[in-house]
Amino acid sequence: PDDAAARAARARQDRLTKPPGSLGVLEDLSVRLAALAGACPPPAPAPVAVAVFAADHGVHAQGVTPWPQEVTTQMVANMRAGGAVVNAFARQVGAHVRTVDVGVAGTLAPGDDLTAVKVRPGTADMTAGPAMTRAEAQTAVEAGIRIATGLVADGYRLLVTGDMGIANTTASAALVAVFTGADPAEVTGRGTGIDDATLAHKVDVVRRALARHTPDPADPLGVLSAVGGLEHAALAGYVLGAAAARVPVVLDGVIAGSAALVAAALAPDAVAACVAGHRSAEPGHAAALRALDLRPLIDLDLRLGEGTGALLAVPLVQAAARTLTEVATFDSAAVSERG
Amino acid sequence: PDDAAARAARARQDRLTKPPGSLGVLEDLSVRLAALAGACPPPAPAPVAVAVFAADHGVHAQGVTPWPQEVTTQMVANMRAGGAVVNAFARQVGAHVRTVDVGVAGTLAPGDDLTAVKVRPGTADMTAGPAMTRAEAQTAVEAGIRIATGLVADGYRLLVTGDMGIANTTASAALVAVFTGADPAEVTGRGTGIDDATLAHKVDVVRRALARHTPDPADPLGVLSAVGGLEHAALAGYVLGAAAARVPVVLDGVIAGSAALVAAALAPDAVAACVAGHRSAEPGHAAALRALDLRPLIDLDLRLGEGTGALLAVPLVQAAARTLTEVATFDSAAVSERG
Repeated sequence: PDDAAARAARARQDRLTKPPGSLGVLEDLSVRLAALAGACPPPAPAPVAVAVFAADHGVHAQGVTPWPQEVTTQMVANMRAGGAVVNAFARQVGAHVRTVDVGVAGTLAPGDDLTAVKVRPGTADMTAGPAMTRAEAQTAVEAGIRIATGLVADGYRLLVTGDMGIANTTASAALVAVFTGADPAEVTGRGTGIDDATLAHKVDVVRRALARHTPDPADPLGVLSAVGGLEHAALAGYVLGAAAARVPVVLDGVIAGSAALVAAALAPDAVAACVAGHRSAEPGHAAALRALDLRPLIDLDLRLGEGTGALLAVPLVQAAARTLTEVATFDSAAVSERG
Repeated sequence: PDDAAARAARARQDRLTKPPGSLGVLEDLSVRLAALAGACPPPAPAPVAVAVFAADHGVHAQGVTPWPQEVTTQMVANMRAGGAVVNAFARQVGAHVRTVDVGVAGTLAPGDDLTAVKVRPGTADMTAGPAMTRAEAQTAVEAGIRIATGLVADGYRLLVTGDMGIANTTASAALVAVFTGADPAEVTGRGTGIDDATLAHKVDVVRRALARHTPDPADPLGVLSAVGGLEHAALAGYVLGAAAARVPVVLDGVIAGSAALVAAALAPDAVAACVAGHRSAEPGHAAALRALDLRPLIDLDLRLGEGTGALLAVPLVQAAARTLTEVATFDSAAVSERG
């Protein structure tokens, strides 16, 4: 982050025709955007792309969710047809949807509307062994970096995280527990809406996986290999790619939050590019945001994933940037200041 | 509200390709929009207009704010030139800005870009007598109704409240105290950002005004006459006009919240048309939203007014409606349901 640009943004906010500080969190966000870009005003965070990283999870076999694994494949088809909530919300905010197969178990029809970078057809069951090899984790991270870099090369100036993967909140809970030190019971949630018995079982599954692997948070690729998901790995890379390009990336829910913890462990400065789009109903998400020191923009009990919560935050990010470019100052508008 | 449309919307939400309930507050909002319209899906809440009701306040003479009264007039000019934050945020969400002089103390240049319905050049000092006559309060309410009705006739299908008036949080605090029964100290805030001493004085001003008039919450026009503002009266009418047309109206901060309390006292069903755009930093706003039983969509420590917080909620309202029209069902997309 660029301190001079941040100071210039803060000073400009204080000169705009409004009471100083009256835009609250959006003023802070505008300062962060300026710092990231190294310019005040920062470039407009548009056009917007959301990359939906889809993958399956071997831990599904442990019965952590009532949803069949095939739903991942079916929902990718739904997204490609434009029928998922992520598509509707992307149309609302004018975002391009990039669907990415980084590890779906099923076979997907090829096409220009699918970025096929399948590392493996779903992870292995983390309670029985590593979810993936270290090399596979690295390959998935690199795929995410390349996709972010490619979107920036295509002209996108605001990236949004998306994800699809039945059972992926289990991997997220494990990642959050590793990187925050929290007990699995504190950071494992109901995902799509499981009952008390399934939640207790899910906590036990996470606990057993962590006991088996004792992942070291100082070795992020090792953590991904042990208990991660392919979409988590790719999302960590996506965050790194956005940060390297100094393009802001809006994080969706607990999948993105746990992936951002991986990115932060790999490169702490990457957090400067992250905007917390929302806070989901998953307890692990709140823990991840606290660890990242990010304040969510939206808090509406969403727990859908796909990138939906982050997309809803896009107009807020753009509005924050817009204040620095479009709003008159006291001088320019000849408005009196307070006595 | 139409119960059949509400039930149809809830049933449809449960058939969309997402875990039931996973869109949280937005599902409830989509149900409210269907109930208001009496149709599922409800009509798209677009195009959007924000009416900014500007007026001045005699209580300014009591020193409740460090900002000079002339700022109201200057900011109306700034809005007409497109330089205020409300203009920037309106451009962000594609909203038309209608600037309305319902009681500015200064003289404004006439023009097509100003709706001139000045009832009087600012209220009188509520600590010395009634803020306005009962007839003036009624005239301002009717102006608000007409403006809402006119915007709907012009094709707008989502109305947003806006306001501009130096010292108007003092009148808001008085209104909230009357309609919620709260003590002035609980619902009087720092407005544009006053210091502790001025806040204590402001609480005392509200307390003296209420002691002088002992307004009866069962007589909303009497309350407006005693301690209201002309923009509060017009906004109450604007809410009534939107509700009568069954068009949703997004409320901004404490000015709109206190005006909605007036509208609810005049016609309780009007609340069905109200969407709480955000929760401002003003304590009286939270109290008003509790009394109206409305959950705010955005909560970012905003305290600017003008309609800015409500405008930021517009994409959320539109996204909620969009789910009912654009998202595939499990059947239509051939996606498996949970076991």
